[in-house]
Amino acid sequence: MKKQMVGNLKVGDEVETQAVILELNRAAFTSAQRAGEFFLKLTLGDVSGRVKAVMWDPPAGDEAVTAGDVVFLRGTVNEYHGPQVVVSDLKKLDKTKVNRAFFQPVSERDIEEMAAELQAVIKEEIADTDLRTLLEAFFGEPEFMRRFSQAPAARTIHHNCVGGLLEHTLEVVALCRGLADLYPGGQINRDLLLAGAILHDIGKLEEYRQDSISFEFSDRGKLVGHISIGKEMLDQRLAGLPDFPADLKLELEHMLLTHHGQRDWGSPEVPKTVNAFALFHADLVSARMNQFTGIMKNHPEGGGDWTEWDRFLERSIYMGRAGEERED
Amino acid sequence: MKKQMVGNLKVGDEVETQAVILELNRAAFTSAQRAGEFFLKLTLGDVSGRVKAVMWDPPAGDEAVTAGDVVFLRGTVNEYHGPQVVVSDLKKLDKTKVNRAFFQPVSERDIEEMAAELQAVIKEEIADTDLRTLLEAFFGEPEFMRRFSQAPAARTIHHNCVGGLLEHTLEVVALCRGLADLYPGGQINRDLLLAGAILHDIGKLEEYRQDSISFEFSDRGKLVGHISIGKEMLDQRLAGLPDFPADLKLELEHMLLTHHGQRDWGSPEVPKTVNAFALFHADLVSARMNQFTGIMKNHPEGGGDWTEWDRFLERSIYMGRAGEERED
Amino acid sequence: MKKQMVGNLKVGDEVETQAVILELNRAAFTSAQRAGEFFLKLTLGDVSGRVKAVMWDPPAGDEAVTAGDVVFLRGTVNEYHGPQVVVSDLKKLDKTKVNRAFFQPVSERDIEEMAAELQAVIKEEIADTDLRTLLEAFFGEPEFMRRFSQAPAARTIHHNCVGGLLEHTLEVVALCRGLADLYPGGQINRDLLLAGAILHDIGKLEEYRQDSISFEFSDRGKLVGHISIGKEMLDQRLAGLPDFPADLKLELEHMLLTHHGQRDWGSPEVPKTVNAFALFHADLVSARMNQFTGIMKNHPEGGGDWTEWDRFLERSIYMGRAGEERED
Amino acid sequence: MKKQMVGNLKVGDEVETQAVILELNRAAFTSAQRAGEFFLKLTLGDVSGRVKAVMWDPPAGDEAVTAGDVVFLRGTVNEYHGPQVVVSDLKKLDKTKVNRAFFQPVSERDIEEMAAELQAVIKEEIADTDLRTLLEAFFGEPEFMRRFSQAPAARTIHHNCVGGLLEHTLEVVALCRGLADLYPGGQINRDLLLAGAILHDIGKLEEYRQDSISFEFSDRGKLVGHISIGKEMLDQRLAGLPDFPADLKLELEHMLLTHHGQRDWGSPEVPKTVNAFALFHADLVSARMNQFTGIMKNHPEGGGDWTEWDRFLERSIYMGRAGEERED
Amino acid sequence: MKKQMVGNLKVGDEVETQAVILELNRAAFTSAQRAGEFFLKLTLGDVSGRVKAVMWDPPAGDEAVTAGDVVFLRGTVNEYHGPQVVVSDLKKLDKTKVNRAFFQPVSERDIEEMAAELQAVIKEEIADTDLRTLLEAFFGEPEFMRRFSQAPAARTIHHNCVGGLLEHTLEVVALCRGLADLYPGGQINRDLLLAGAILHDIGKLEEYRQDSISFEFSDRGKLVGHISIGKEMLDQRLAGLPDFPADLKLELEHMLLTHHGQRDWGSPEVPKTVNAFALFHADLVSARMNQFTGIMKNHPEGGGDWTEWDRFLERSIYMGRAGEERED
Amino acid sequence: MKKQMVGNLKVGDEVETQAVILELNRAAFTSAQRAGEFFLKLTLGDVSGRVKAVMWDPPAGDEAVTAGDVVFLRGTVNEYHGPQVVVSDLKKLDKTKVNRAFFQPVSERDIEEMAAELQAVIKEEIADTDLRTLLEAFFGEPEFMRRFSQAPAARTIHHNCVGGLLEHTLEVVALCRGLADLYPGGQINRDLLLAGAILHDIGKLEEYRQDSISFEFSDRGKLVGHISIGKEMLDQRLAGLPDFPADLKLELEHMLLTHHGQRDWGSPEVPKTVNAFALFHADLVSARMNQFTGIMKNHPEGGGDWTEWDRFLERSIYMGRAGEERED
Repeated sequence: MKKQMVGNLKVGDEVETQAVILELNRAAFTSAQRAGEFFLKLTLGDVSGRVKAVMWDPPAGDEAVTAGDVVFLRGTVNEYHGPQVVVSDLKKLDKTKVNRAFFQPVSERDIEEMAAELQAVIKEEIADTDLRTLLEAFFGEPEFMRRFSQAPAARTIHHNCVGGLLEHTLEVVALCRGLADLYPGGQINRDLLLAGAILHDIGKLEEYRQDSISFEFSDRGKLVGHISIGKEMLDQRLAGLPDFPADLKLELEHMLLTHHGQRDWGSPEVPKTVNAFALFHADLVSARMNQFTGIMKNHPEGGGDWTEWDRFLERSIYMGRAGEERED
Repeated sequence: MKKQMVGNLKVGDEVETQAVILELNRAAFTSAQRAGEFFLKLTLGDVSGRVKAVMWDPPAGDEAVTAGDVVFLRGTVNEYHGPQVVVSDLKKLDKTKVNRAFFQPVSERDIEEMAAELQAVIKEEIADTDLRTLLEAFFGEPEFMRRFSQAPAARTIHHNCVGGLLEHTLEVVALCRGLADLYPGGQINRDLLLAGAILHDIGKLEEYRQDSISFEFSDRGKLVGHISIGKEMLDQRLAGLPDFPADLKLELEHMLLTHHGQRDWGSPEVPKTVNAFALFHADLVSARMNQFTGIMKNHPEGGGDWTEWDRFLERSIYMGRAGEERED
Repeated sequence: MKKQMVGNLKVGDEVETQAVILELNRAAFTSAQRAGEFFLKLTLGDVSGRVKAVMWDPPAGDEAVTAGDVVFLRGTVNEYHGPQVVVSDLKKLDKTKVNRAFFQPVSERDIEEMAAELQAVIKEEIADTDLRTLLEAFFGEPEFMRRFSQAPAARTIHHNCVGGLLEHTLEVVALCRGLADLYPGGQINRDLLLAGAILHDIGKLEEYRQDSISFEFSDRGKLVGHISIGKEMLDQRLAGLPDFPADLKLELEHMLLTHHGQRDWGSPEVPKTVNAFALFHADLVSARMNQFTGIMKNHPEGGGDWTEWDRFLERSIYMGRAGEERED
Repeated sequence: MKKQMVGNLKVGDEVETQAVILELNRAAFTSAQRAGEFFLKLTLGDVSGRVKAVMWDPPAGDEAVTAGDVVFLRGTVNEYHGPQVVVSDLKKLDKTKVNRAFFQPVSERDIEEMAAELQAVIKEEIADTDLRTLLEAFFGEPEFMRRFSQAPAARTIHHNCVGGLLEHTLEVVALCRGLADLYPGGQINRDLLLAGAILHDIGKLEEYRQDSISFEFSDRGKLVGHISIGKEMLDQRLAGLPDFPADLKLELEHMLLTHHGQRDWGSPEVPKTVNAFALFHADLVSARMNQFTGIMKNHPEGGGDWTEWDRFLERSIYMGRAGEERED
Repeated sequence: MKKQMVGNLKVGDEVETQAVILELNRAAFTSAQRAGEFFLKLTLGDVSGRVKAVMWDPPAGDEAVTAGDVVFLRGTVNEYHGPQVVVSDLKKLDKTKVNRAFFQPVSERDIEEMAAELQAVIKEEIADTDLRTLLEAFFGEPEFMRRFSQAPAARTIHHNCVGGLLEHTLEVVALCRGLADLYPGGQINRDLLLAGAILHDIGKLEEYRQDSISFEFSDRGKLVGHISIGKEMLDQRLAGLPDFPADLKLELEHMLLTHHGQRDWGSPEVPKTVNAFALFHADLVSARMNQFTGIMKNHPEGGGDWTEWDRFLERSIYMGRAGEERED
Repeated sequence: MKKQMVGNLKVGDEVETQAVILELNRAAFTSAQRAGEFFLKLTLGDVSGRVKAVMWDPPAGDEAVTAGDVVFLRGTVNEYHGPQVVVSDLKKLDKTKVNRAFFQPVSERDIEEMAAELQAVIKEEIADTDLRTLLEAFFGEPEFMRRFSQAPAARTIHHNCVGGLLEHTLEVVALCRGLADLYPGGQINRDLLLAGAILHDIGKLEEYRQDSISFEFSDRGKLVGHISIGKEMLDQRLAGLPDFPADLKLELEHMLLTHHGQRDWGSPEVPKTVNAFALFHADLVSARMNQFTGIMKNHPEGGGDWTEWDRFLERSIYMGRAGEERED
């Protein structure tokens, strides 16, 4: 059955589709005859947007639902300060079995293709045997590769989609490759820089709740953070490679820990090697360019020359496209 | 033989003692007959202070000395912009065999006594079996305990002495105990708080070069930092305790990572649990009170009511002791 | 008559109780027949919470009411976007005669007990005669003691309740006592430190409007501030103690002025004596620990592991209680 | 006898003059025959500058001198890395009796004239009886007026000279008068603004040590600060004027406390009345313009178009005088 | 016909007036019979305030209206969460022909009078021929003078009204004149300072859209900014005065570029000449005093002693007028 | 004649070479027989370093020398706290005729080659006719190209050498090219981005004194700054291209003005177009990578694993080259 997208529902539509419960409030009836009973006020979502809903006779006990659940529902859309679904029927689904593409935005680039590109970088560009062995210990493991390919790179700001981490990682690799070309003075260790680029955000795999359809942070993500988790994952993997050189380990740890570049941006130390310094700048440029172009992509057609104020970038963006219209 | 203290050397003294080479510069002779030869300009130190020295015919080859070496030397003190030792003879010593008390300031409190106090806290105050087992895994190991007892707590600012880490740790334990008493609402987990207090600075053991007589940072200390090293030491130790509860592990990791309280003070995350928050404040108060009272201790008798400007605290301190003289 | 708590009112209830008017707006009727007349939209409050209300025929002239008034009211609760009291009858009460416990949260600790504890500190712990005399000049005066016992310690953040100032003061005393024990080097003057702890916030007595049931700031509180008011109160009291030593006066003034620790936190100077420095840290720890545990107390049962975002602490707090459930 | 200015001493000069001892170090002889004896290394100063000096047989016991003393000395100038006075004879003078103009820079404007101008402002411009009475209570007292006329306005940055406080006060009065003219909307209370301008820095009288020839801060100045001292002086004076209106008192207190404009500039509160806000800006402009023009005045003739870097203003100043040379 | 002011409309009024469309949203009908059609939700404004409006049958095609348009409208006011105009008829007007005084606040001072005052400053106070010639090249041009007289000085904070730029410019001139009087040491070049004051904000003429009735920024205003636009206008004008001295040009450019005083306030360089430094302070004081007194002017009669919190000044303002009531 | 490099001079050498006078002080003789006469203390420099010098009988009148002059000198090197040239003969040279390569460091890359590369970018990569015409108007002018090729990119931090501007510009072009490749979404206008990269620092040509052998700032450089000078140069050039599209002009102006990215880094506006945003990041990365690798290049062989503290980067850099030694 084709999915009805909640962002397209109109007053009068009959609804029979899947959705994720984004918000759920239990509200008491005020009429005397239903005193002590409750109904549900819901916000339902999928990749197309969100819609309000109400359910007068919600399921209880084992069948009760909660925020974060994915459900199958039946109902009708009526008007109540905009469209609102009156839900007649609601059934919790097994989150691990639903089609995530209904609920999570997916990278514009093909995930398979990106995964292959990353594997090629490891195989073809990393000449150093120790580093390549380490990378293969991670990315040669199918389950690791699967999770890495599904993870987002960030919750709200940049690369927030399935495949986002992969896309961001490839961008950082490309930027690091460019820097290695541009500064050929022998200071940068190209293999080390690319390896650091590939590994820098591995901690993101545990920063998000795997079971969350809406990319929520895990408790560990909030209490430990992807930088320290990443270093821990590196240490664990290296524990299985006893011959890995200590100096390379030290540089890689330093690169992972310092890739945010400044203490107040979450790195416990600042980059003190040229490879860590280059990685930090590549990560910064990737994150910031995506933030900027992401705002442009979200700007509606016909929305005028200026985007809404963005509180992270602290500016509106000018969309005027000088020179372009004349080219055809 | 009794050690001659370099801080007490006077013009005319014959010198025959041990010292650490704090600075060493090779300087070329300008006279024609010694063209191409070098002499040494040195700064020698021990726990009493520092003195300039010069050596016209320095040892070479295997016997050459470098900054950081501990040496036995013979010479005479003459005047050259203040006292200067003209060294006639110089021999490198095995740093691991010298009496460190000659070269490193030692905590005012007795180290044995402090070590016993810490063991008592672990044995008598930590009721939680998991936490006590973990602490004993660290502090029950004699080599760990020896290194912990010798380590300084900081390079330049507070508790900068042998035993400093032990002294600081006990202060933080005492302050945490006080906070647990003061906030009995059941929010603070006393055992966890004390365990965190005991463990919070274990990473300091590897932040300093063990072979350095003047508490120099190790490369790892500078590239990884004691906060991340501490978390790593905790992870390694817990790998040997497979039944340790995951929730306690998460809280302890969080406490270690956040004990500097703010990102720009070097913690990759801020304290988000009440135990981590209490630990941060206890650590802060111990560090700051020691900084302040340390400046007062260094203020010379008869140096007036105001100390020198301190660039870390950004103030001079008023030494006037109101009310005290009247009490006798 | 037992007070009906406004936080518990339900649709259909008959109301006959006291409340404070938190907000009051006069609104014009839009129907022709009542053109030129006004009705009242109100927010009513007490210690249990707040409720909307409407009054169609409000009292006028001398009997008119305004925000901040405490009133006796009669009415019925109906539903209008949630419960709303339709007020039929409303009478202003003499604010000084109502039971403040109905309108202001009260410290969890017993006020009498805390007052006795404070008196005991003055009597038993302050050996210095001058300091004890000064403290008794303040706290031996029943009216001062009464006001001190009723005052809150802060408007919105910590210790915001009747008795809050007393509770906060005792916490700061306890923390200072701990610091005096921990740093026995003779630098801290214990009597002076405890006296400063007891006096540090006396200016709070005039920072709040005495007649305000909702802890509003007085004009003087906003224009002069509790730090400068406190110094002024100290100066006035000392004017009556001509033999009080000048050096103790200077230290106490300095402690009161600097107890916020930094200029941008409202202290016109930074602490430059060890007693002022210790007091600042004790005050900081008390304020911050209360802020943190206060958020935890307000977190609803079943509200999940994470509290709402707190804009003062700039974080959510993790409520997970590691290790605790296993202890029973 | 005419004063020899130390800034003009040349090698070979015989010296017989007064000077203030800016720095004094006791140094041990290194020769055997004078072992245990000391000589003095001095820096001597007067309003013209400073010069090094040495004294081989310094006075001892009651006649010993210390930094801050004003002395009469005899000696000869020889060359030792520049001119150095070899002092043969040295006698402490009574600081209160020397001609301060030898040692302290004096305002370029005539002090008598400025004092008269200030009195005229009080008499002729302050129409409000209460305010005029208050001002006369201060400035009608000859001793207060004498001290006010002698005080500097700042230690190192602006108006650092005898009469500096008077000069600065008149500038602030003039700027406030201009603001009252420019904003005639009835918001500014001209009498109150001028009174605040006259009183804003009275605390400076006790911020400097009266006995110090080099404008050193007093202990109270450093521990309490001129802002809180000023408020205290105002309170004391008002205690003798029981009919002074409470609302005027509140505004004046607010103006004194907030005239630095921001908390991190030392005001415990920010200006919240238009009079306090205007006063802050007038004070700021006077201080900053004097800082800037002071650097220009100190720039030597022929020193080029750019001054030295100024670390307070964080810039060099361009002295180029566009347009001026063409005007004659 | 007299304009009906939208801020005064009451339920039941018949409306026949001009207004500017501040906001416009097209909304779909939800009833079946009008499916696919739209109605307009509007916010209409004029200088008196704003009002909601709805139009069920909006004009289409060439007669369609959009936000920013000025319209003539007919309708009736009914009640829908407050007054709402039901518009029956709506016609776009030629914005350049409407009476701007209906839509834009106008300076309290008479614009003709201010313009004459500015011309007099140029003619009578600027003795330097080059500078006067330059100023006349700008202000002698009627179109420039017309636009200068109509421009606001700022979008939201100070002098936001027709004539605001002129009023602000005269204030800055007056403040600079006062500074030139106060610092007669020959450092300030009075003619240059006044010329800079007159010219400092000329870039504002192109920072706002000329066709906007609500002072919206132009694209150039947002992308280039009035500081750089002002420098460009100066350069263009000077290109027509080939004999203008290069040193004066350099100083004027510097003054225009640096009049915001700090980099983070938008000046690409800091003031490095005394004239630029004085101009910056005069501009600052004018802007800040207007901000402050503007908040006071907007405070409603009977609104109590304290204004609303102002997020730019980060404070509430105390309106209490000490001393004033006693003066009559 | 081959140039003797001052950095290589040794005690006893006879000197006959060119040098630039970096510092010059006139000092008075202290001996009676030469009273009133002066000698010169000099610091002489060339690209190899600097050396002290003294000249007892300096040339006077028209032949007098000053700091910044390039001279031909004869003398001998003796020892005075290190080598010092006793100058017997000194003659000012025409700065425009000397071989600048003796006095100014030169880019490691060949200038001709870089110039050709830049011309190729303009000719081959810029498809937009308007932009290419503009770039050719600048870089097709031989004098402009000569100056552009000789200019440094920065005074002290990065690319401080002849050809530095060219080298930096090509790096920024390369980084922008990489960003255009990486973000092919159609948002970036590649031609515009590359044109902005080529033009972004043209203002540097007038930021430095052309006649200065040591890259000193010009007065205009300090008072106007290269950002505003660059915009002015662009405006002037565009004045000669009347058909240049206004939208492209606006974008280019915006790119030049905002390429420092933040107000406190000297840009009067922040980047609000994607092209300006990309250019800022490319410029930042080029500047920062050069700063970092420059410190590494200056680190002496055998200087240990850590560089000196760098006050701009606020860190020492770790030189350890993990993985590299194993590769051969």
